[in-house]
Order: sequence, then structure tokens, then C-alpha cells
Amino acid sequence: MGIISDLTWRYATKRYLNRPISADDLNIIIDSIALAPTSLGLQAFEILVLDRNSSLRPKLIDACSKQPQITEASHLILFNAWKSVSQEDIDSYMGRISSTRNTPLENLEGFKSNIHRYTGSKNHAEIFAWSCMQTYIALGIAMVAAANLKIDSTPMEGFNREAVDAIINPNNDKLSCAVILALGYRNSELDKLSSLPKVRKSKDELVKFG
Amino acid sequence: MGIISDLTWRYATKRYLNRPISADDLNIIIDSIALAPTSLGLQAFEILVLDRNSSLRPKLIDACSKQPQITEASHLILFNAWKSVSQEDIDSYMGRISSTRNTPLENLEGFKSNIHRYTGSKNHAEIFAWSCMQTYIALGIAMVAAANLKIDSTPMEGFNREAVDAIINPNNDKLSCAVILALGYRNSELDKLSSLPKVRKSKDELVKFG
Repeated sequence: MGIISDLTWRYATKRYLNRPISADDLNIIIDSIALAPTSLGLQAFEILVLDRNSSLRPKLIDACSKQPQITEASHLILFNAWKSVSQEDIDSYMGRISSTRNTPLENLEGFKSNIHRYTGSKNHAEIFAWSCMQTYIALGIAMVAAANLKIDSTPMEGFNREAVDAIINPNNDKLSCAVILALGYRNSELDKLSSLPKVRKSKDELVKFG
Repeated sequence: MGIISDLTWRYATKRYLNRPISADDLNIIIDSIALAPTSLGLQAFEILVLDRNSSLRPKLIDACSKQPQITEASHLILFNAWKSVSQEDIDSYMGRISSTRNTPLENLEGFKSNIHRYTGSKNHAEIFAWSCMQTYIALGIAMVAAANLKIDSTPMEGFNREAVDAIINPNNDKLSCAVILALGYRNSELDKLSSLPKVRKSKDELVKFG
């Protein structure tokens, strides 16, 4: 089974080779993120893609606890989650549904009210937590897409959010970095984790049937 | 590219046929969840799997806004996230690493301290938000695994958490339901969404390069 061997092959890569992933492969990974399902279909996030030449990469080192992937990985994808949902966001989404599905906007009034009610019931911290969750769906899917292309990846939470935002989202009250995905090719020589067996709970510990 | 066509094929299924998914397919989906990467490798969640015969299914209907998937789907997977991380959880994880990798426990002291420091810095709400995020990685991966098997899926947030917990986690101060995944086969006749084109942001809206 492809996905199981892909997931078994991948691991949280610490050290990367200086070898770029191709534009075609990057596009497949980005497409997988674009197709990720999200709550209400709202896609309450953006991604910021940085290659090795990006001038932002060196600036992120300190904000990311000097983790070597920030310097070494071929690409970093920073998932920027929404801190709020505006009337304009919802209108723009309704416009997208209307044009994609050739549906009059009037027919979407019920769905629009549901989104207003749902997002309106949450405070800023709750909206951000909720939009962060959605980025993690896309994060998981992107790692499967990468592994399928034999591209290594590292999901990274260990960063100072305020410091990262000051670099990538300065004076932006809409976006905040939820999580970072490093992509590239493992450096098996320097990365002792690359040869270690995966540690997982037993099925009995993880799975209950009811 | 397999994963892109799989993700294009899938959609948030509302209505399911009365047709069970096979034990082999279910196992592949569960394996993909078990292999999902999680923060610190801690797998701070469990899953509860309910087939159509589960006596818990009818009890969940009201707690899940009477959504038809709760009754109709072949299986429901409820992701139960940890509300706290105990000394015992960390010790048990260290034991798992030690036995899987044949590493003396003493060599894991540094990693163990890091986990203590990280989880100790968070209050209960923050721990739960963090463990919920991890379940969303697994949720995303499980949906890819399902789509690859031509099994439909629905990620479901629209439930009353307190009411669901009272049914599946009574008197349990460790677990709370983060999200539910319905699995099965679409009923294209009853589900008008099955034939509608997918609505997504344009690449320009979703992706920035920096």
C-alpha cells in the first residue's frame, strides 16, 4: 500500500542536503495544500513559500531556535492562519462559490448566515485556534504529498510566533504563523535520526472500538 | 499524480450509502493515523472507531446536530485529544523510545526534560488546543488514505463537544473529542454536493512567495 510505505519512509528530518526540490514537485505539494478540506470550505489561511535564496530565511534563524532546517531545507512553507474573519472574507467566499458553481448569490444566503453565526460566536483567540487547526489538515496532507515524491519534510512548531510574525507578517493584523513545514532531501550522514526506527504507540494504546 | 486526483475526487460527503468499508481498508486508514507525525512524537490522542452496529451511534445523533453522516456512514472515527500530559504519559513514551530504538533510558533524559518543560509551560486549555492540532494532522492524512482507497470521508466539527464527551468519554478527565471523521461510500443520488465542482481560492490568493 503506497501511503503506508510513504508514511513509514518519512521522518521528521533534522538535517537537509543542499539540493533543491524541483518546481514541478513543489507545485504538486502546493496543489495538495490548495485541495485540503477546511472547515466550512473557508480556507482561513495563506501559505508563504521561501526557497533557499529568500532573504527572509536568515532572518528566521533566531526566531526558530536556530534549528538547522531553517537554513538547510530546500523550501520552507509557513502556514499563516487568519486571526479574524471579516465580512469581506465571507463575501469573497460566497462570490467564489457563486462563480465556480454558477449559483445565484441569493441561493447562498442560508450558508452565509451559518458562517456568520459560527465565526461571530468566536473571539479572536478562538478564531485563530480554529484556523490553525485547518492549517494542520493541510500540513498533514502536504507531508503525504511530499513523501509520495520521496521528498523529506519536517513539521515545525518550535518557534517564537511573535518574532516570526514580526519578520513575515509585519504590521499585519490578519495573519499569524501557525506552523512551518520544511521540505527537501535528508542528509543521512549528518542526521542520525534518519536511520532510527519509528516510535509509535501500539494499536491497543491508540485505537479503541466502541 | 495520484494524490492530486484523489484529493480532487474527494469531497465532504453529506449522504452515505448503506455499504460498509472492508476490514482491510479500515486497517489501512487506521495505520495511516498511527503513522501520522505529531508534535514531540507524543501522539497525544486516541481514536475511537464506531461501525454501523455500535450502540453509541444513535446516542450521538442529537449531540451532532442530527447530521445524517452520524447515522449513515460506514464508520465514524472520533479523535479524542488529551486534555493534560502526565508524568506517566511521558515515562511511557520514553519507555517506548527506549525499547523501539534499544536506547538506554538515561540517554533520553535531555529529550524528557524538553517535553516536561514544553508541556509544563501550558495550561489545560493550551494543552488541549495543542493536542487537537495534532489530531488534525492525522485527520488530513486519514482523508488522503481513504481517498486513495476510493472511500469517501467527512471531517466533522459541528458537534456539541460536551454532549459528545458525555457519551463517549463519561467521567474521563483525560480525553475530549477534537473532531470526527465519517467514512463510507457517497450516496450520489441523495447528495447533491457530490456532483458540484470544488470551490477553492485561486493560487494567487492562497500562495505567496517571499
